[in-house]
Amino acid sequence: MSELVIWTYDWVPEGPRGFVRDLRLRWACEEAGLDYAVRTVAFEGRETNHLDLQPFGQIPMLSDGALEMFESGAGLLHIARKSDSLMPRDPAGEAQTLEWTIAALNSIEMVTVPWWFLEVTGAKDNHLTGWLEGRLTHMERVLAERDWLAADRFTVADLLMADVLRVPKVRAFGQRPATEAYVTRITQRPAFQKAHAGQMAHFARAE
Amino acid sequence: MSELVIWTYDWVPEGPRGFVRDLRLRWACEEAGLDYAVRTVAFEGRETNHLDLQPFGQIPMLSDGALEMFESGAGLLHIARKSDSLMPRDPAGEAQTLEWTIAALNSIEMVTVPWWFLEVTGAKDNHLTGWLEGRLTHMERVLAERDWLAADRFTVADLLMADVLRVPKVRAFGQRPATEAYVTRITQRPAFQKAHAGQMAHFARAE
Repeated sequence: MSELVIWTYDWVPEGPRGFVRDLRLRWACEEAGLDYAVRTVAFEGRETNHLDLQPFGQIPMLSDGALEMFESGAGLLHIARKSDSLMPRDPAGEAQTLEWTIAALNSIEMVTVPWWFLEVTGAKDNHLTGWLEGRLTHMERVLAERDWLAADRFTVADLLMADVLRVPKVRAFGQRPATEAYVTRITQRPAFQKAHAGQMAHFARAE
Repeated sequence: MSELVIWTYDWVPEGPRGFVRDLRLRWACEEAGLDYAVRTVAFEGRETNHLDLQPFGQIPMLSDGALEMFESGAGLLHIARKSDSLMPRDPAGEAQTLEWTIAALNSIEMVTVPWWFLEVTGAKDNHLTGWLEGRLTHMERVLAERDWLAADRFTVADLLMADVLRVPKVRAFGQRPATEAYVTRITQRPAFQKAHAGQMAHFARAE
């Protein structure tokens, strides 16, 4: 029996397939060589049907034996502590990995997701565009100077940042060659490919 | 000499005083009884003058001896690992604290900050209002059922969530008595009061 269980929806529409956040946890497990099982909650009625497991009605959740946790960022940090393939064990490497993981969640995704939301809901002027441009320009400068965000090697911070930056509308925003090369390189990793295929197959089976 | 150094701006306008994010790190140190020093980078030219310390031109940064890190959320998790006054040491308590810390950063602040930004920049219709309302309603339900987010006690997750929710426009949004009681109770803590006074005095001295 796998001890690690990743919880996702039983089904989602075609649009978000390949981008549902259980992919982050699948990917982390694939990078670390950890077994995992996938279980589901119902997509229909998600706003109320599993609030005991996830207080905002979202997914993913991660179970690790008796431990349960929600928030993909928390699940990633939990998995990362199990394997130095995701987080170096020296204090400086760990601190860099932590700061860039939080930066992906709170300095980049805090801008990309609301900006994307305004784009897809068709707000006439997207007043978050200047903010997005500023943050993505800063990221481009960082990624023009180095291959990895933390500790001169792939870490869970790259996994998360690449997942945030690969969202099509975000990826297509502006000319940012270093960022594009970074996203391309990281999503070519076999662990990403396997996690992505796993999610696509999971939702296809639900049809 | 203090080993912990919290970096903030040398000055900010009156508006953000009391809400600048170095307060989160001051507060955590006060809760944990840890000594800290405060150092500054220039507010003027912040978009470019300290990118070697903080890649988005923001503050705070935290130094801990030779370790340096940016992102208030990363600094909080780093400080929390030094003291069980901020994070329980048992695996279940730690997992709960981690998930709610990340929830504050990536499920609540990801909505409150862009919503606030649209409010203050005067967008005619704030298209993030429905999203904000949904998330704050979920938080109200959680806080109506318990006093603390994690492990039945105050943790760094409460520190961060209360700091996110106390922003005046967010705090004034809707009728949410359990949330209001939570924010009031947590911001009455002596450690918050001391950190807040410390930040106000710091910026007043710069005049």
